[in-house]
Amino acid sequence: MSDLVTRLKALLADGAVIDGEEAVRIGLARRPLGAPLAVVRPGSTAEVASVLRLCHEAGQAIAPWGGCTGLVEGARADGMIALSLQRMNRIEQIDAPGATMTVEAGCILQTVCEAAEGQGLFFPLDLGARGSATIGGNISTNAGGNRVLRYGMMRELVLGLEVVLADGTVMSSLNHLIKNNAGYDLKQMFIGSEGTLGVVTRAVLRLRPKPSSQNMALLAVDEYPHLPKILRNLERGFGGTLSAFEVMWQDFYKLVTSPPAKGRPPVPHGHAYYVLIEALGGDTAEDDARFERVLATELENGEIADAAIAKSKGECERLWALRDDVLQVGQNAPIFTFDVSLGIVEMESYVCEVRDGLKARWPAMSLMVFGHLGDGNLHLIPGVGDGGSKARHDVEEIVYGALRKRGGSVSAEHGIGLEKRDYLSYSRNADEIALMRTLKKAFDPRNILNPGKIFAVN
Amino acid sequence: MSDLVTRLKALLADGAVIDGEEAVRIGLARRPLGAPLAVVRPGSTAEVASVLRLCHEAGQAIAPWGGCTGLVEGARADGMIALSLQRMNRIEQIDAPGATMTVEAGCILQTVCEAAEGQGLFFPLDLGARGSATIGGNISTNAGGNRVLRYGMMRELVLGLEVVLADGTVMSSLNHLIKNNAGYDLKQMFIGSEGTLGVVTRAVLRLRPKPSSQNMALLAVDEYPHLPKILRNLERGFGGTLSAFEVMWQDFYKLVTSPPAKGRPPVPHGHAYYVLIEALGGDTAEDDARFERVLATELENGEIADAAIAKSKGECERLWALRDDVLQVGQNAPIFTFDVSLGIVEMESYVCEVRDGLKARWPAMSLMVFGHLGDGNLHLIPGVGDGGSKARHDVEEIVYGALRKRGGSVSAEHGIGLEKRDYLSYSRNADEIALMRTLKKAFDPRNILNPGKIFAVN
Repeated sequence: MSDLVTRLKALLADGAVIDGEEAVRIGLARRPLGAPLAVVRPGSTAEVASVLRLCHEAGQAIAPWGGCTGLVEGARADGMIALSLQRMNRIEQIDAPGATMTVEAGCILQTVCEAAEGQGLFFPLDLGARGSATIGGNISTNAGGNRVLRYGMMRELVLGLEVVLADGTVMSSLNHLIKNNAGYDLKQMFIGSEGTLGVVTRAVLRLRPKPSSQNMALLAVDEYPHLPKILRNLERGFGGTLSAFEVMWQDFYKLVTSPPAKGRPPVPHGHAYYVLIEALGGDTAEDDARFERVLATELENGEIADAAIAKSKGECERLWALRDDVLQVGQNAPIFTFDVSLGIVEMESYVCEVRDGLKARWPAMSLMVFGHLGDGNLHLIPGVGDGGSKARHDVEEIVYGALRKRGGSVSAEHGIGLEKRDYLSYSRNADEIALMRTLKKAFDPRNILNPGKIFAVN
Repeated sequence: MSDLVTRLKALLADGAVIDGEEAVRIGLARRPLGAPLAVVRPGSTAEVASVLRLCHEAGQAIAPWGGCTGLVEGARADGMIALSLQRMNRIEQIDAPGATMTVEAGCILQTVCEAAEGQGLFFPLDLGARGSATIGGNISTNAGGNRVLRYGMMRELVLGLEVVLADGTVMSSLNHLIKNNAGYDLKQMFIGSEGTLGVVTRAVLRLRPKPSSQNMALLAVDEYPHLPKILRNLERGFGGTLSAFEVMWQDFYKLVTSPPAKGRPPVPHGHAYYVLIEALGGDTAEDDARFERVLATELENGEIADAAIAKSKGECERLWALRDDVLQVGQNAPIFTFDVSLGIVEMESYVCEVRDGLKARWPAMSLMVFGHLGDGNLHLIPGVGDGGSKARHDVEEIVYGALRKRGGSVSAEHGIGLEKRDYLSYSRNADEIALMRTLKKAFDPRNILNPGKIFAVN
């Protein structure tokens, strides 16, 4: 056992340091996260700081772990100390009048949402992994999800951070204020930096008033150009309450509404696109009427081919369940998952080019497409009957090649991690990447914080 | 004339470089901005880059200038090259389907707002200096203003930036995407950094759908604790359309509704607080009804003592004119202006403590208070009959001392500049300021970019 691990065991409470093999054996990690030297689970910011001081002195690389639900190998920890925040999972304070919540980084997203609701408030971040993803992970990847359209990404939901820097310095910036222009807004650097600039240990979250009305519908649309028009018309017509505009290409819709999937089609198969829409408002009776009237107008002018309006909380949940039933793509395994963003007007031609490119090479391929169209964010899940690294590379070239031409981003919300590192230059130019390196070197001169993630330092 | 100025004149087109004395004589600057070595007005990013390369080699300090409407001496340029962006004022592109606008940094805010409206779109940033403040200045101070409650500060309205770094490198990061997690979000570091990390030359702005309804009212409220309740109830009741919640303490309201001010009181004097509210929605007829119904409920439950609802566009403009008529505070000249933020629940006791502190020292003092209560942001404008630096220092100790105890910020939206530099430590701890210095040194090792602003580097 390495000398460093011995010293870490001496430093922390019993059971806080688990040797790598043991950690893998007891399944501490939900996904293949490589072979860490050890998994260290500090119980406090002070312990995180002492771990980092030790690793900094030793030049030992660490990989911060949250819920390990990431999709881009951002937590891969071969030969590293896996620094798990899972034991730091307390909600420390809820300030109801100020509408803020202070939590430890290991706090589970769903726990935060439920605690906010308990106070008549609302934490808007919502994504499939809500039950296991941590707030620290949401911050380090600037998580997006289902309601970015209305409430923004995680960046807009964080007021303050406590971060432990590479050398163990605790940088406490637990701002509770909505507006604070007193010098640089340091938290912005850590949000979305995937654990490469510091380890987030605590956060102050911004809460919103709890909506008192939820209106949902599933729309069928036959022509792509109608989608951006419908989006703009609903944004206007609902006057600021549109909270989701989730588009499912027909193959995906068919997949999640046919056996063996549990879901059934609220509107018939056979249309080109299906849109899940949600509005969150403040006046149940009136919002229902407005919702139906605005949709009726869209139906009349022919942009919407068919629509099913959810009539109950249960029906709303069933609509979300369709959109969330991404596991069904496993039917086409082996698969690859992509998370891209591009201009809404480009999406139709983009998806066609990707599909044609894949078909030409793998005639039997499948391509599932869905996403947060309102945010310009698409998830593409191709299956080409081959999960090997050569196939992955060839698929990536097709998916990202078509994206690069359109000025898109290889990561809308999942981050870069290791998986997309070779393609960062498709979405960022040399000057941008050089400046990222400048920042990394200034904050982590020994390159011990999640090294190799996002970009190679040298 | 300095050798550097001679070289700058040779480098740029005729008339682009104006000697300091001449610049002062012809009144290039709207406020006392010190005595610059010269004012340089490049016409392109390439010229900005060549100016910076030259200044970097020479170790010559520069102060970026936008509209020079700042309130904290952030553009003060004694002995520096004043780098004015005012000639780079073009709107380069409006992408209506994508709802983005690409502009040069010297573009005037109001010009941007009008251009957006011309396309049926909306740029929400709104502040008193709209007619002369530039987008570059709005970015460098992370401007706030009247509609932060609904649309966020400038940070939330910027998608991409082009920045010239200290050494003249042009870092073009003109992202058009709403979601882009491909590596660090570099623009975040430059927004709100007051020209100390780079010179913003172009920006991609996010536009919103143009609201089709505007509802406004002026509310009279007698007890402070009612204000946060009314705010939350309106946020809920208006379902996401509340765009302004501007509170005027009674002295300020009286000042802007009595001669010599042009404004007249829409509701009588004598109440403790007056609130200007605005909702921007998508359905004129229905929004009017909702607006009046929600207000009626508040009147019934007694939280609102009196209310005047604007019945026309003209009446809306007259209500905003009251709130914007800040020049009336000149009646109490000499005055000092403060821009603080703190928790809404703390504001009443805070203002009382400041008033008592000032009264104890200057019995004849005046204190005008108003601000964006929905954002936790108050503007305090005391007049103590003495504009001297000793009086300023004593007033600052009273205003900021009471703020420090309450965990407030010495700058909600104006920035730190030179004026508030000595008080940065009231709102940021030593670790935060140390990290700001780390960032500054990494980006501007020779300390030539607006040196001395926000904090002293050494």
